[in-house]
Amino acid sequence: MNEPVVVRNVEQPPTEAVAALEKFGVTTVHEAQGRCGLLASYVRPIFSGSCIAGPAVTVSLPPGDNLMIHVAVEVCRPGNILVVAPTSPCTDGYFGELLATSLRAHGVKGLVIDAGCRDIRPLTEMKFPVWSRAIHSQGTVKSTLGSVNIPVVCAGALVEAGDVMVADDDGVVVVRRTAALDVAAAAEQRTRKENATRERLASGELGLDIYGLRKKLNELGLKYI
Amino acid sequence: MNEPVVVRNVEQPPTEAVAALEKFGVTTVHEAQGRCGLLASYVRPIFSGSCIAGPAVTVSLPPGDNLMIHVAVEVCRPGNILVVAPTSPCTDGYFGELLATSLRAHGVKGLVIDAGCRDIRPLTEMKFPVWSRAIHSQGTVKSTLGSVNIPVVCAGALVEAGDVMVADDDGVVVVRRTAALDVAAAAEQRTRKENATRERLASGELGLDIYGLRKKLNELGLKYI
Amino acid sequence: MNEPVVVRNVEQPPTEAVAALEKFGVTTVHEAQGRCGLLASYVRPIFSGSCIAGPAVTVSLPPGDNLMIHVAVEVCRPGNILVVAPTSPCTDGYFGELLATSLRAHGVKGLVIDAGCRDIRPLTEMKFPVWSRAIHSQGTVKSTLGSVNIPVVCAGALVEAGDVMVADDDGVVVVRRTAALDVAAAAEQRTRKENATRERLASGELGLDIYGLRKKLNELGLKYI
Amino acid sequence: MNEPVVVRNVEQPPTEAVAALEKFGVTTVHEAQGRCGLLASYVRPIFSGSCIAGPAVTVSLPPGDNLMIHVAVEVCRPGNILVVAPTSPCTDGYFGELLATSLRAHGVKGLVIDAGCRDIRPLTEMKFPVWSRAIHSQGTVKSTLGSVNIPVVCAGALVEAGDVMVADDDGVVVVRRTAALDVAAAAEQRTRKENATRERLASGELGLDIYGLRKKLNELGLKYI
Amino acid sequence: MNEPVVVRNVEQPPTEAVAALEKFGVTTVHEAQGRCGLLASYVRPIFSGSCIAGPAVTVSLPPGDNLMIHVAVEVCRPGNILVVAPTSPCTDGYFGELLATSLRAHGVKGLVIDAGCRDIRPLTEMKFPVWSRAIHSQGTVKSTLGSVNIPVVCAGALVEAGDVMVADDDGVVVVRRTAALDVAAAAEQRTRKENATRERLASGELGLDIYGLRKKLNELGLKYI
Amino acid sequence: MNEPVVVRNVEQPPTEAVAALEKFGVTTVHEAQGRCGLLASYVRPIFSGSCIAGPAVTVSLPPGDNLMIHVAVEVCRPGNILVVAPTSPCTDGYFGELLATSLRAHGVKGLVIDAGCRDIRPLTEMKFPVWSRAIHSQGTVKSTLGSVNIPVVCAGALVEAGDVMVADDDGVVVVRRTAALDVAAAAEQRTRKENATRERLASGELGLDIYGLRKKLNELGLKYI
Repeated sequence: MNEPVVVRNVEQPPTEAVAALEKFGVTTVHEAQGRCGLLASYVRPIFSGSCIAGPAVTVSLPPGDNLMIHVAVEVCRPGNILVVAPTSPCTDGYFGELLATSLRAHGVKGLVIDAGCRDIRPLTEMKFPVWSRAIHSQGTVKSTLGSVNIPVVCAGALVEAGDVMVADDDGVVVVRRTAALDVAAAAEQRTRKENATRERLASGELGLDIYGLRKKLNELGLKYI
Repeated sequence: MNEPVVVRNVEQPPTEAVAALEKFGVTTVHEAQGRCGLLASYVRPIFSGSCIAGPAVTVSLPPGDNLMIHVAVEVCRPGNILVVAPTSPCTDGYFGELLATSLRAHGVKGLVIDAGCRDIRPLTEMKFPVWSRAIHSQGTVKSTLGSVNIPVVCAGALVEAGDVMVADDDGVVVVRRTAALDVAAAAEQRTRKENATRERLASGELGLDIYGLRKKLNELGLKYI
Repeated sequence: MNEPVVVRNVEQPPTEAVAALEKFGVTTVHEAQGRCGLLASYVRPIFSGSCIAGPAVTVSLPPGDNLMIHVAVEVCRPGNILVVAPTSPCTDGYFGELLATSLRAHGVKGLVIDAGCRDIRPLTEMKFPVWSRAIHSQGTVKSTLGSVNIPVVCAGALVEAGDVMVADDDGVVVVRRTAALDVAAAAEQRTRKENATRERLASGELGLDIYGLRKKLNELGLKYI
Repeated sequence: MNEPVVVRNVEQPPTEAVAALEKFGVTTVHEAQGRCGLLASYVRPIFSGSCIAGPAVTVSLPPGDNLMIHVAVEVCRPGNILVVAPTSPCTDGYFGELLATSLRAHGVKGLVIDAGCRDIRPLTEMKFPVWSRAIHSQGTVKSTLGSVNIPVVCAGALVEAGDVMVADDDGVVVVRRTAALDVAAAAEQRTRKENATRERLASGELGLDIYGLRKKLNELGLKYI
Repeated sequence: MNEPVVVRNVEQPPTEAVAALEKFGVTTVHEAQGRCGLLASYVRPIFSGSCIAGPAVTVSLPPGDNLMIHVAVEVCRPGNILVVAPTSPCTDGYFGELLATSLRAHGVKGLVIDAGCRDIRPLTEMKFPVWSRAIHSQGTVKSTLGSVNIPVVCAGALVEAGDVMVADDDGVVVVRRTAALDVAAAAEQRTRKENATRERLASGELGLDIYGLRKKLNELGLKYI
Repeated sequence: MNEPVVVRNVEQPPTEAVAALEKFGVTTVHEAQGRCGLLASYVRPIFSGSCIAGPAVTVSLPPGDNLMIHVAVEVCRPGNILVVAPTSPCTDGYFGELLATSLRAHGVKGLVIDAGCRDIRPLTEMKFPVWSRAIHSQGTVKSTLGSVNIPVVCAGALVEAGDVMVADDDGVVVVRRTAALDVAAAAEQRTRKENATRERLASGELGLDIYGLRKKLNELGLKYI
């Protein structure tokens, strides 16, 4: 019912959509797509300041076993983001500098993993961005199969191969492949609107007036004393 | 029993007390006032290196609804610190860059929130300091009333409007408005004493001798082997 | 059954082993000694970028009482690392800038503590590295005895006085004193091997081929589709 | 600023209000008073099936030190509930069977403690109800002062001496002393209303119709497919 | 991109498969389907001793708002299990005795909720089984739409309407609707095999011999000393 | 440095000491031996009401792999308690009803495991007591070696083979084999003293008087107001 497989060919999202989503970042994209697809907030960047987007290569693997990450490297394309989800909660350090070297050689932009990561200093020095659940030196074995490019639940969010991952200091959000262009357009619109609002707020105008909230406060019965 | 209200006029603490407390930082202030008023340690700065103090504007609001933060902006004065406490545990991202822009336009120094924050990168770039319980892109709505400038329990500590909040890399502490001058004086005294001790310790003298602990160790029966 | 004692003379590990372990860092050392001795991953550095190794001076003390840290300073030697373990879970701020000043005056390299730390900013400025379970301003008293240089369980790992602590951005690992030379040799060997692998991975070769995993995948029945 | 005191005389809430609140239980009381006063949900009963209400005797004490619980026994009156809050997070076992024996001898109904409890089996056998944050054998000392019957923050809620504590399998809620009669009346009203609703729901009527929600769903744009 | 919808007609799994799965319980079913579909272990029963199985009615709803549970009741069929997943982490008490009365009137067997539950005592008395993430009196509002019978991620597992939920003291597992018959057959087979093994183990035979592990231990190099 | 071994012959503690310790329970034993040896409080019984004591058979094993529990059964003696500690944090369900059947057939009294357990209902019905860190259906494999009867750190406490484990509703404590008789005697003495105190407290006498604390309160400066 659950045979280990590697899906080689994954339909990719439009390049221009990925580029746009990377520009907008996690919070704007999350809002623009109607507040869905956010990964649990325990997944945090190992260093701050990165913002990347790319199509997901998904990996489902057992706790404490990173064999399938090695398998996945071969099917990664330039610009991809690796998304790794153990089948049981695990904080072991599945990933370090050597795997990052290998992924970078194949053009992979970064890693999102619902487990542990190690080699924090060399990863920081080589600026390979990782979003992980834990920092943990505890290594893994290479014994048991899992699958590549099947749908996985990563940090509470469903991710399918080819979906666009967006990751920055706010966390990680997934955008369905087929929705990527629409979400990019909605994010563009939201950003334009926010730019206008930002200027008004910076000049001292109140959100209460800009968003027309005073009437509502009155109806709801707020008292000033 | 719990009508939503906004208290407009809040008695402010002495300006010189606030300035002094900001200079001493959280740990010294916490010690100086007899080890009370510390917020739970899960409230952490979104970036390191800030140290601020200012009178609290308090906000009590429902989970997942930031309407009252917009209401609170209007009653903030330059130098204030906004203190936000949901009535039920919540890690949603109540606060981001636009609200920070608005607060800054009104002279607010920073935010302490027992919930989530988002837009970490722009907030870091604009150097608007936030102490929060979580980093979370998940947004909120603007539907339900709460109150401004009533007493709140924020991260386990009671905060009343006009109390002085002190926040730095060690966390956040609240000083009662009426005690601010006394606490500042006690902190001054403690710092002077610590400066003297620091010099002696740096020269290699032992705390055992400086604090006169050897006799106590002996009475308690410590054995050296 | 549990009398408080201070053990003055602790056998030290070979100096060259300590120097080598410091060079290799936590993850390499942890692998080289067969994946044992890792402290729980909740012990994190208060600032990033440090990598130290040194013989442990161990402190077992009560919750909320740092008297024994003051006692321990006197038996520390240059190059030591202080390892502090409360006898009951505690996140109080046992340690701050003054104690760091004292430890530095006696040549101690850093602190590993299964409890809280405070004075984060001054500790960062003086570059005194600390790995702690929490950041917490809450201070401690100096009332009750504990022991120095007895075996302790710190963050889930057994540490004996004179064992070598290695600590960096990946966490903390303990190496038995008598095994230090062997572990350093094994780490040297592992590093050499990894350097060779790194070059091949960087050139685009796959781990599947370098580690000879393809046959195993086939035997285990992995399907490509 | 924080002198240890014991307040002997505490104004008590009306007896009939306490009796009524005990009958209604935590959730009804919490709703009836406008959803405030709930303690954090990590405070759980050590055995299930109890429901008690009574005026609070509050205890503020240091981590790992239960001296002030012994002090508090003397000022308890029959029907009181002891509310214990450490000044720093602590899971030590402050309380066990002997203290329960003493409290019962003075008519105290139960204990709410934002820390640990031990002797679970004898406490269960003698049916002395405790709501605690942890179960932990780790004992405490009797060395340091705290205060009795001052305002405390217990599990995130402000409790003043004489406030009514209500505790059952749902958790713990505090009712201000002066509001107790009004809250009891509101709870009575809510219960009557719920009884009517229960009957309609049990007969198969839908909440959508009973609460008149269909129009709202329509306005909000819910689609059935 | 995320319009709120209610899907009325959901294909149901074979009745005999549901009955079989209920008989086998969570752990056997989880094993029989190849160790997938398990919900996170933080979802626990509010009382022990229940074991139920039934087709899922799924509810996706906002934090702190239970409007959609009321909507869902109308589309439930006898034998269903309600599966509720907030779009953001939330421990509020979405569910209590009145909703249970309503669900029971429509034949619903129980509830699985990745959030809080309240009214524990009446729910226990009426034996309505709930698996929840928290017990929390904090109530919710009825303001915002969500969806019914769309795919949801509940406690880390993907659940689609019509999938079979199995829940007992071990936790909760989801079985794809189309796999239900096969999984029931595999569970039957596993149980038969375990019954045989149990007898041999009860008579003192060792698992080492029954599972033929001694050769493996030898090959792996285990030493007896 | 870490070769997998099974130590067959383990020196056992005096039978009468084990029997006595079982009678006194965890909290009394923990106090009697000077407050050491307590396991972390996250290890909880899967059902309440058990109190057992017995010599430890220790198992050190990898995350997600229970091969070594099968190995350990063979070296267990009647009256032993199995103590299982993974080398990396893990909540998988290593243990269920079949293993319990096997252990019982060899006279083992119960299990303490710093990981997950499953089959809660059958284990409860057969009254086989387990203290575990989690309840989790997720199974394990039987692939990798570990060791039996070497010293392990279980839930933060050092346990050596032949040490006496005591476990009840308060948690789990370990008593060194060589100290068992002394600790049993100290527990006997403590119990006698507590029995006398209990009677006085039950009659309404205050702890303040029984323990002679009034003078101390006075010296420390407690004020009654």
